[in-house]
Amino acid sequence: MPCGHARKPFGGRHMFLRKIKSEGIAHLSYMIGSQGAAAVIDPRRDIDVYLEIAREESVNITHIFETHRNEDYVIGSIPLAERTGAQIHHGHALDFAYGDPVKEGDAFRIGDMELRILETPGHTFESISIALFDTASGDIAVGVFTGDALFISDVGRTDFFPDRAKEVAGLLYDSIFEKILPLGDQTILYPAHGAGSVCGSGMAAREFSTLGYERRNNPVLQKTDRREFVEYKINEEHEQPPYFRTMEKFNQQGPPRKERPEYLPALTPEQLHDAQQNGLQVVDTRSPEAVAGALIPGSIALPLNMLPAFAGWFLSYDRPIGLVIHSTDEVETAVRHLYRIGYDDIAGYLVGGLHAWEVRGKAYQTIPAIHAVDLTKKIEDSEDFLLLDVRSPEEYRRKHLPDAHNVYVGHLPEHLDELDRSRKIVTFCGSGQRALIAAALLKAAGFEDVENCFGSMKACAAVGCPVA
Amino acid sequence: MPCGHARKPFGGRHMFLRKIKSEGIAHLSYMIGSQGAAAVIDPRRDIDVYLEIAREESVNITHIFETHRNEDYVIGSIPLAERTGAQIHHGHALDFAYGDPVKEGDAFRIGDMELRILETPGHTFESISIALFDTASGDIAVGVFTGDALFISDVGRTDFFPDRAKEVAGLLYDSIFEKILPLGDQTILYPAHGAGSVCGSGMAAREFSTLGYERRNNPVLQKTDRREFVEYKINEEHEQPPYFRTMEKFNQQGPPRKERPEYLPALTPEQLHDAQQNGLQVVDTRSPEAVAGALIPGSIALPLNMLPAFAGWFLSYDRPIGLVIHSTDEVETAVRHLYRIGYDDIAGYLVGGLHAWEVRGKAYQTIPAIHAVDLTKKIEDSEDFLLLDVRSPEEYRRKHLPDAHNVYVGHLPEHLDELDRSRKIVTFCGSGQRALIAAALLKAAGFEDVENCFGSMKACAAVGCPVA
Amino acid sequence: MPCGHARKPFGGRHMFLRKIKSEGIAHLSYMIGSQGAAAVIDPRRDIDVYLEIAREESVNITHIFETHRNEDYVIGSIPLAERTGAQIHHGHALDFAYGDPVKEGDAFRIGDMELRILETPGHTFESISIALFDTASGDIAVGVFTGDALFISDVGRTDFFPDRAKEVAGLLYDSIFEKILPLGDQTILYPAHGAGSVCGSGMAAREFSTLGYERRNNPVLQKTDRREFVEYKINEEHEQPPYFRTMEKFNQQGPPRKERPEYLPALTPEQLHDAQQNGLQVVDTRSPEAVAGALIPGSIALPLNMLPAFAGWFLSYDRPIGLVIHSTDEVETAVRHLYRIGYDDIAGYLVGGLHAWEVRGKAYQTIPAIHAVDLTKKIEDSEDFLLLDVRSPEEYRRKHLPDAHNVYVGHLPEHLDELDRSRKIVTFCGSGQRALIAAALLKAAGFEDVENCFGSMKACAAVGCPVA
Amino acid sequence: MPCGHARKPFGGRHMFLRKIKSEGIAHLSYMIGSQGAAAVIDPRRDIDVYLEIAREESVNITHIFETHRNEDYVIGSIPLAERTGAQIHHGHALDFAYGDPVKEGDAFRIGDMELRILETPGHTFESISIALFDTASGDIAVGVFTGDALFISDVGRTDFFPDRAKEVAGLLYDSIFEKILPLGDQTILYPAHGAGSVCGSGMAAREFSTLGYERRNNPVLQKTDRREFVEYKINEEHEQPPYFRTMEKFNQQGPPRKERPEYLPALTPEQLHDAQQNGLQVVDTRSPEAVAGALIPGSIALPLNMLPAFAGWFLSYDRPIGLVIHSTDEVETAVRHLYRIGYDDIAGYLVGGLHAWEVRGKAYQTIPAIHAVDLTKKIEDSEDFLLLDVRSPEEYRRKHLPDAHNVYVGHLPEHLDELDRSRKIVTFCGSGQRALIAAALLKAAGFEDVENCFGSMKACAAVGCPVA
Repeated sequence: MPCGHARKPFGGRHMFLRKIKSEGIAHLSYMIGSQGAAAVIDPRRDIDVYLEIAREESVNITHIFETHRNEDYVIGSIPLAERTGAQIHHGHALDFAYGDPVKEGDAFRIGDMELRILETPGHTFESISIALFDTASGDIAVGVFTGDALFISDVGRTDFFPDRAKEVAGLLYDSIFEKILPLGDQTILYPAHGAGSVCGSGMAAREFSTLGYERRNNPVLQKTDRREFVEYKINEEHEQPPYFRTMEKFNQQGPPRKERPEYLPALTPEQLHDAQQNGLQVVDTRSPEAVAGALIPGSIALPLNMLPAFAGWFLSYDRPIGLVIHSTDEVETAVRHLYRIGYDDIAGYLVGGLHAWEVRGKAYQTIPAIHAVDLTKKIEDSEDFLLLDVRSPEEYRRKHLPDAHNVYVGHLPEHLDELDRSRKIVTFCGSGQRALIAAALLKAAGFEDVENCFGSMKACAAVGCPVA
Repeated sequence: MPCGHARKPFGGRHMFLRKIKSEGIAHLSYMIGSQGAAAVIDPRRDIDVYLEIAREESVNITHIFETHRNEDYVIGSIPLAERTGAQIHHGHALDFAYGDPVKEGDAFRIGDMELRILETPGHTFESISIALFDTASGDIAVGVFTGDALFISDVGRTDFFPDRAKEVAGLLYDSIFEKILPLGDQTILYPAHGAGSVCGSGMAAREFSTLGYERRNNPVLQKTDRREFVEYKINEEHEQPPYFRTMEKFNQQGPPRKERPEYLPALTPEQLHDAQQNGLQVVDTRSPEAVAGALIPGSIALPLNMLPAFAGWFLSYDRPIGLVIHSTDEVETAVRHLYRIGYDDIAGYLVGGLHAWEVRGKAYQTIPAIHAVDLTKKIEDSEDFLLLDVRSPEEYRRKHLPDAHNVYVGHLPEHLDELDRSRKIVTFCGSGQRALIAAALLKAAGFEDVENCFGSMKACAAVGCPVA
Repeated sequence: MPCGHARKPFGGRHMFLRKIKSEGIAHLSYMIGSQGAAAVIDPRRDIDVYLEIAREESVNITHIFETHRNEDYVIGSIPLAERTGAQIHHGHALDFAYGDPVKEGDAFRIGDMELRILETPGHTFESISIALFDTASGDIAVGVFTGDALFISDVGRTDFFPDRAKEVAGLLYDSIFEKILPLGDQTILYPAHGAGSVCGSGMAAREFSTLGYERRNNPVLQKTDRREFVEYKINEEHEQPPYFRTMEKFNQQGPPRKERPEYLPALTPEQLHDAQQNGLQVVDTRSPEAVAGALIPGSIALPLNMLPAFAGWFLSYDRPIGLVIHSTDEVETAVRHLYRIGYDDIAGYLVGGLHAWEVRGKAYQTIPAIHAVDLTKKIEDSEDFLLLDVRSPEEYRRKHLPDAHNVYVGHLPEHLDELDRSRKIVTFCGSGQRALIAAALLKAAGFEDVENCFGSMKACAAVGCPVA
Repeated sequence: MPCGHARKPFGGRHMFLRKIKSEGIAHLSYMIGSQGAAAVIDPRRDIDVYLEIAREESVNITHIFETHRNEDYVIGSIPLAERTGAQIHHGHALDFAYGDPVKEGDAFRIGDMELRILETPGHTFESISIALFDTASGDIAVGVFTGDALFISDVGRTDFFPDRAKEVAGLLYDSIFEKILPLGDQTILYPAHGAGSVCGSGMAAREFSTLGYERRNNPVLQKTDRREFVEYKINEEHEQPPYFRTMEKFNQQGPPRKERPEYLPALTPEQLHDAQQNGLQVVDTRSPEAVAGALIPGSIALPLNMLPAFAGWFLSYDRPIGLVIHSTDEVETAVRHLYRIGYDDIAGYLVGGLHAWEVRGKAYQTIPAIHAVDLTKKIEDSEDFLLLDVRSPEEYRRKHLPDAHNVYVGHLPEHLDELDRSRKIVTFCGSGQRALIAAALLKAAGFEDVENCFGSMKACAAVGCPVA
């Protein structure tokens, strides 16, 4: 019958679970609540989103869980705990400078929910998973937060302890097959990353799954033989951007206590130029095509959507950053992305954008685009140029154009000396985006004759380039 | 390794599923998308939310599915189809005036998703469920949209065909046990209603589940014997608010083509008063306490959070509605709630609120509150008054105060003649909210000595009233 | 001809002026900008609005001006300067603990704007006005920021130095007639307060004016004779809420460096009740009618729209505050209002609102409403009760009901002992709102038989009460 | 004294005036209100902003005034009247197909405001101005809405009746000097356009002024001699984009009754390409630099900020439009801009942006940028190329580079045959933006060797080019 206890204008009694996705790094955090209390799993550093949900749902955040010491972003546990009084919990196998360690079997109540700790080492030694039970219903798990142990269509990386590679791969096998999957097919899977993350290469485009679905369809979980699983894992290739070291330090010792900048000075072209002479890192977040059309000499091109994944390869934590952006609407996104991975020292943004730079008569460069069809012709005509393929070695091995020279974009700065500055260089990658970053790096390093292939390998597939 | 194809500023390639909850009626619709295409399951009438998601996700809405002819809200399929060009689909067992019928086994592609139709009659004859597959992954269902067949912790109502009660209850059993559950424990459950809906009385506060979890924990699904299940279902009690008939007509023939009012005239006290004399239904959506403090004679009290569930019991579709609201911020919510259940003729709102009414010297009434402690004393002292319990008969039977007279709030208008106008009446319910609606109904009907017990049965439980 | 230099997506070249109104205290601050620079006049404490405009307009805030040491709100200069690097300026005639003093004739450039300082004492000794010139156009003032010297249809209060009443009234005369008006009729007037402020009683409902318009229409400016003007000013009556003293201290020495609370704990009825026993000030910001319908014993009723103007009369700075609110949507507004006048210690809000309180069986009181018609009858019937008129003495003298006893609502706490607790008291004011505050104060002080007249004097005017 | 009648949560009693600026066309409309009623002056076609203000301020829109038949945008009077029931008024000297004519001296009450009609022909014959009085204060004007008669620092165009040029210039003189200025120096000026509009070339960057300020500082108003004024006006040069004819027709007869598209189909590269073959106008609203970096062959480049001012030169009303945009966030802005000037037939937007186009291997062009320094060198070296200056003849005459050939960008399509397709063409303008539009037009017309000078004349001024 119709109930009179329909939702009060104060949130309500429902048991909620919200997934918060941080684009670019494809990080997933979760906030769950019941009966006025709530917990956050793996909060990001810009914690406003959790406070906002607390307001909407009329709950107090009482617990914060870290599934492991994250290496790809700064965790927001400490500021969130300060604001809310919540307790921070993480695995006991690492010595954190803050928070309370938990161990296998520990249980926490959040209203009608119960969270039970599973120790699931492998990705790291202190990794935990958290099984979710509804005490008002039954005693089987309804969900599990797996951190970086188990993803949708993939499992966590095990390349962080190269001397103990087999050991940790084996630990991951045990965690998944002996701890997580036994929770039952009915358990909804809530991993810490989704497609697009650097924390796994094979994640599905699908954003929802269950243990039962993964057990039957996750390609890695089909390797039910421990030995086979370990063999597969130790042969995987992963890149570790240099900023990972900083994240690990921050996330073990507690990150710098800086608030996300709410106000960013507007820099005139003259101010930006002068600051650049004094060490400012000029970061250009405009689209690849806009960068190609005109860019400031010496700037680092990191289109906004690529900023989260690539900033950590190229930017120093020791020098301030000046932003070149498409419009003021995008300033906040850029600042947020940088803040999430610990870049707090942002001096300002170029007011008026590149147009302001141009009308003051300041120097700009361009990066001509070469279409896959024309590139093919250049190759067939044996024109003299270096085709620089900046994809990963793995991608390169799978398929590449003839005579292409492979240097992964992240490692390009260390390999500049190997390249002949007198030759034309055409940058190339999967779709033309990493190639654009590479082309801008070359320009900044003083290479003069640089072109970029928008579309790159995908365009090649469409128009039919010769491939090796 | 880090991918360059991180999310473009145009949505992206992920396979998304969004749940859209309509508060008050606790209706759940879903929008799912993949590779630029999207489908909506059971859209509500105010369709702006789906268009907004389409923009955010950069997808085209190509399909609309109705799990059944809904009886508790106006479905938004037709306006959504007009705006987007999407095809509308529903079960073939009812003769709809629009859309295309589907049958068991029909399949639809939305990017990498496949939707497969299951005929799952029971709640209604034309009810369908829709199983969701990820063709990029495997051939077991990852989710299922069950409409009003299966909920979290409950199953659908089967009281709409009283002459065929056993038949439809049996059909529901077959649909659940032979069609839905066989999809497998790993399947995520996406029902059309959540807790608070009139479409089931036992729904969980939890908003997420799987078939495996329900198979083991849903109380009704424990009745695995068909006979027992049918017996249980035919003995359930449900109320059918009168507006259900209008919804059924609208949803079979296509609802009136009115846009949701964007602009509502601001009515002065004089204008509201005059219009009321000419048949305007004055609907007061302020909080129960504010209504008790001062209300316009003849107005119908429907606090904002109760408006969706109770408007259909008391409001006529033939006369315009004038709103008395807490603040202009709440006008849009009130209009949206009314629009969702087909009340389009809203003449305006009282500008300045009740304060404006008061300063013009217009008449107002009050509803004194009586605390559970004082009510108990009144009973113990055998004072003369009628304790009117407006909860459902089922709630009443479970537990009630001594000498309480039970009339369900929805049926009160038809039972006014049975009440003694010369006696004091104290209204009472589960928490004091339905009782407040009832008290206002009595005042509007000319009863003079009416009091209301805020807190009602719940307060009684806290302070210890005598119960029968 | 069509220009190509239409607005870039970075704000633009326009010379802008934005008025920021703080409702309730009717405080007006201004942000003006030109060519990438901006100044703020009299910033409020919640400075997010100025940072937001800076982003929208792509400008740097370089200057902050305080027209005087404000007595009715906490000025936001210091946090705004910290965030932006702007310089703070104020009159030299008071010894501020921060910022730079300015004197007559000082001039500041903001892009193409020039701001020139006029010393305009009277309201306070250090008061300044700021004339605005457009250097790209001509050398007459286009606008003037007058602080609390000149308002639309009124002039500033001169009651803050009672021993020097004539002197300051004369200073104000000179400031207006010899400094401000001589800027010319064409000058747009930008005062620091609008209608509804406690800083002047006669301000127009109109929110825009010029010096020429005021010169001809402002009633006080018609007193062009200095003696007459002074006479008029020293005979004005104004109230000084006790919080003014705290504001003056904060605004001279620099206010506490607290951020506005982003997160407020949700308090259960039990938690609120316990805290109240330990000194928590329970502030009920719901509507007057809702307060009348049911209120928590001991709480202070300050409906949201009256909170800014009346909190400073009744709330202590030494004890924490707990909020009772209509809905979570209003929490932020309440917190913002309190923060603006220096109440930072907010312990939380009652989650679930009064409904939650009721269902836990906790005690509540009611304040019966008596209509003006019934009140009149009561008077005519010579019933025994005290009619307590809580308007200002000035309002009372102008017109009141027979036998009404006058105590201004702000002073009621000090006059409780003069009232007979055994008699019924009916509270009364201009429209029933201050009367409701008074009624709740009486209830909290233990008066038992208290009623309130919604509509009060205005309703009386409409229905025709007997007036003295 | 502190008033209890602080703002109710329903707007309030203040007399408000809001300026609504439509960027790009720099159109200003106004909404004014008092005592629950409101009027809109010159509403734009996307009327949601007025309905939103009506909600915020709790007023009814009762009157709509059109200062004249506008020629640069579609007026929104009819849909606004339909939604609100407001009356539409305009000058009687033109035969409109809707609304009510007004004449000199007609007066309208909006709460305490009075609006008095002044017939002020000149810009057009039916032009009116509307003087604003506050009846609660005094009987001199507090403001005046002057439409296109008087602007800040300029006066209206009088080039629309070339055969009667002297007559209308004289009429404008009379309207300003005999009708508007006599309202008095104290009157605030509210014109229908601000800086950046095509409706006047000399408007100030300042957005606020008074009649007194203008009388003394507006350069055109210094020509107090009627003959001199007329002489000046008839010698002005203005461009009339072709879409003005359509606007005039729409605004006299009533525009098409289309709603602004809420939903825009996402077009794949293939769909866009096919549609383009069938007549779709591909409009690229990305930044000039992005267009230069890669553009779709045959597309029309109209960067978002230039779209309002330039779309009417190049786009046909008879063929659908497909958008290429920076990100989905900008779709709504682009659609709104086009809708405001009557382009309703928008087929969709390229989903995934140019990146999607590139990865499908589709053809793209580039427009190399040439810096002012390099351009200067090219000129000094007497290289063979055509320097095409696309500024207005007036700008060109004032100063230009040696040997530059002048064709106004708006007229370029008609002059393509005059240009030598075998020569390199470098486009040039004031800052490089119109030049980019021109360069893209040339590419679309099949010119192959086209370069563009970002920065153009402004960069030249900064770096010191040779000028003629």
